[in-house]
Amino acid sequence: MPNNTSSHSLDFLFHPRSLAIAGVSGDMNRLGGGRGFLESLLDIGFPGKIYPINLEGGEVLGFPVYPGIKAIPEPVDYVISAIPAQFNPQLVRDCADKGVPAIHIFSAGFGEIADVSGKKLEMELVDIARRTGIRIIGPNCMGLYCPRGGLAFFRELPRTSGGIGFISQSGGNSAHAIRETALKGVYFSKAISYGNACDLNESDFLDYLVGDPETEVITGYIEGAKDGKRFASALKVAAARKPVILYKAGVTEDGTRAVASHTGTLAGSNAAWDALLRQTGVIAVHSMEELVDVAVLCKLMAPPRGTKLALMGIGGGAIVQSADECVSAGLKLPPLPDTVKQRLSQIYGSETGASFRNPIDMYWRKRELIREAIKVVADCDQIDLLMIQVLVGVGGSREKMLLEPYLESIISLGHEINRRSVVVLRLMGPAKFWPFVPEAQSALADAGFPVYLSARDAANAVVKYARYHQRRRQSTSSW
Amino acid sequence: MPNNTSSHSLDFLFHPRSLAIAGVSGDMNRLGGGRGFLESLLDIGFPGKIYPINLEGGEVLGFPVYPGIKAIPEPVDYVISAIPAQFNPQLVRDCADKGVPAIHIFSAGFGEIADVSGKKLEMELVDIARRTGIRIIGPNCMGLYCPRGGLAFFRELPRTSGGIGFISQSGGNSAHAIRETALKGVYFSKAISYGNACDLNESDFLDYLVGDPETEVITGYIEGAKDGKRFASALKVAAARKPVILYKAGVTEDGTRAVASHTGTLAGSNAAWDALLRQTGVIAVHSMEELVDVAVLCKLMAPPRGTKLALMGIGGGAIVQSADECVSAGLKLPPLPDTVKQRLSQIYGSETGASFRNPIDMYWRKRELIREAIKVVADCDQIDLLMIQVLVGVGGSREKMLLEPYLESIISLGHEINRRSVVVLRLMGPAKFWPFVPEAQSALADAGFPVYLSARDAANAVVKYARYHQRRRQSTSSW
Repeated sequence: MPNNTSSHSLDFLFHPRSLAIAGVSGDMNRLGGGRGFLESLLDIGFPGKIYPINLEGGEVLGFPVYPGIKAIPEPVDYVISAIPAQFNPQLVRDCADKGVPAIHIFSAGFGEIADVSGKKLEMELVDIARRTGIRIIGPNCMGLYCPRGGLAFFRELPRTSGGIGFISQSGGNSAHAIRETALKGVYFSKAISYGNACDLNESDFLDYLVGDPETEVITGYIEGAKDGKRFASALKVAAARKPVILYKAGVTEDGTRAVASHTGTLAGSNAAWDALLRQTGVIAVHSMEELVDVAVLCKLMAPPRGTKLALMGIGGGAIVQSADECVSAGLKLPPLPDTVKQRLSQIYGSETGASFRNPIDMYWRKRELIREAIKVVADCDQIDLLMIQVLVGVGGSREKMLLEPYLESIISLGHEINRRSVVVLRLMGPAKFWPFVPEAQSALADAGFPVYLSARDAANAVVKYARYHQRRRQSTSSW
Repeated sequence: MPNNTSSHSLDFLFHPRSLAIAGVSGDMNRLGGGRGFLESLLDIGFPGKIYPINLEGGEVLGFPVYPGIKAIPEPVDYVISAIPAQFNPQLVRDCADKGVPAIHIFSAGFGEIADVSGKKLEMELVDIARRTGIRIIGPNCMGLYCPRGGLAFFRELPRTSGGIGFISQSGGNSAHAIRETALKGVYFSKAISYGNACDLNESDFLDYLVGDPETEVITGYIEGAKDGKRFASALKVAAARKPVILYKAGVTEDGTRAVASHTGTLAGSNAAWDALLRQTGVIAVHSMEELVDVAVLCKLMAPPRGTKLALMGIGGGAIVQSADECVSAGLKLPPLPDTVKQRLSQIYGSETGASFRNPIDMYWRKRELIREAIKVVADCDQIDLLMIQVLVGVGGSREKMLLEPYLESIISLGHEINRRSVVVLRLMGPAKFWPFVPEAQSALADAGFPVYLSARDAANAVVKYARYHQRRRQSTSSW
């Protein structure tokens, strides 16, 4: 049976030498569709041959258009279908005849629609796949992103390859995660938007990522599993091998209704999912933002020994709120040892207003002092983690003057502290300072720091990450 | 006793005809200090006379500098002190001698420092105030913001006056709140950063705002009360008259330690504060962002009848997450009545992929259809609230094409729907689209819509606002 192929062999999906796109319109105003895929593949630099398919023929972006898959004179490793739902069974049959090993069906209008005709059409696809051995991704999804293989489903996705793998029942969420994570200096090995999962499903792709040497951390956006039993055991295997971060969406009754109309999936009971994630040791998150926040830590932060945090920042009120947010999230802010307080007091001797308790309000301007103070706190072996909060836009027109010494001090410390530190960039000034945030974030990310836009989000991610490692240590030591 | 003056008479603080600033340095590189106040007052357009004071004399920004308060030949209504802590008692005495009715002491180094000398110095100030009748704001604070009176403590604070009053133990948080709220189209009547509150305290200013006809909504950032008993009864009176939104900071043991070093206040037990806020009917929030989020609703949204929400937005995965976030926050997303679903189906007849359940995935492009669909849902009398989510940056380089029809449709509906709607602008594209967010936010705010950057934050604010009105209705009906 062709669909019993080991998931590890799915690697061929990510490195096609040639591909065809069915349903490439010449109309510039049509979004998505085949043309969007063509542009995305050109944007990321797909290295192989591309064959657009369209009954009208002609040319698109300089590529000759073929009237059908069978008209293409050379072998095709992969097909992307963006033609109307009802024409897909014939296309899949034609692909199978030509020996195409896999097809990604972007088209919607299958199992996810209310009308029963959609479900029948989807069953027809499954039947063809079972009979011919062709593998199907989708329908109703964005397909594959793999920078090494030159595959992308949106423009402006990074060409840089990294260690995060992603399985997703949403294409938009995939692009969002890839872009957000890249802003934080962390990149993806593969992202798979698999939609209705009529043939290849969540477990196939999960198994693949577990065996994929490029993938160090597995992340997922799941609305529900096609085969819950198999997914449960796949998750268990995965989480034992690599960190797995999962957003199980549609956790509420109302969310479940949204899911049903999105990918036609049965979402399953919340209690069952909660139990499954807990038992398997998966890091459960509740939004794509949280998923990104934790994934970044998996790559950039060393496993924390505990949750004792030192918090440093400027602005009395701002640091009080951030302390509240850290403690609410589950971090501890223990008082600093006297030796550290004395060192800070020496460093800052000449400037007034200092607080050397924890949190540490460090409203000073000399960068050598800032740098030394951060180093003293980071080196303290009675804390596990350091959070440095920088306020963006405070100081009005002089904002650069205030922001820069902090950024430069942090960046100059780089690898001396970045494995146990997070940086919070909190926008507290006029709106014109918005552009500083991605700029500063990028500079900090280049120096290896995980960056967050609020202490709340940073603390939440750090706690999830620390607890994950705590659980792993406990389960290891109990052997 | 001069300090028994009724708080209502504090109005004189906000409308001085002339003011002096002690400690204005000619050094451009000194932040804050007297020069910062001078620049802030010029920036907002203080209409009266300004007298800088500095022992060095000379000129600053074209203003002649006086060597002391007594050297100023005319009456002075208000003094801002930015001189070192130890010189303040003499300055306050000199001010009292000259008949200055009030002084704001920006200087730090009083009750908030660990050294007992600070506390002694602060007691000396209190003693002078009690004996002479001069009123003191501070020390260790930013003082007053009042656009009508031309008072500001940072540059680039709005000149527009509005209905939000703010009492705050943090100057930075005050500026943050004022700016963030302005971005959302809502403005402040007065903001008071009162720091250590050695003379005029939280209750004095709270009482004042209750009686102030310009102030419709009272907000506060409180680390702890100087006089807890008085503040409790002041809060009760305030909350019965106007909506009161309070962030009691330092709620945790660790936060309490941060508070002690920030303004030298005893924070009080969390349980006592929780009980107080609940009993008085205050809307309790847990960050400045939340405070702004709820304050904006008080101005822009009609009291909701309930928490039944219709959620509309683009992007399957994005809308599933937002539905999760709404329900987690406490909103209900009931199915839409058949009549509404039929109308939506008619409107969208020609385009595929629509989901007319709730949430409503509305990935379409024709603005007349978008507009009509929103109107149909907003008019449905079985829902209480409408949330419309717009994704910023989706569609890559064509992003304007995707964003604009939604924004234009929403804005064109304006007052027909804005009293029961919130708009979420979720940034999901490449970083270059950041600048679209404040731009779009400003256009939506001009059309009277409360705008949020995530469904989580929007839902949280809406729930707090709806529950506030629910409690008010219950307490009224039980009379």
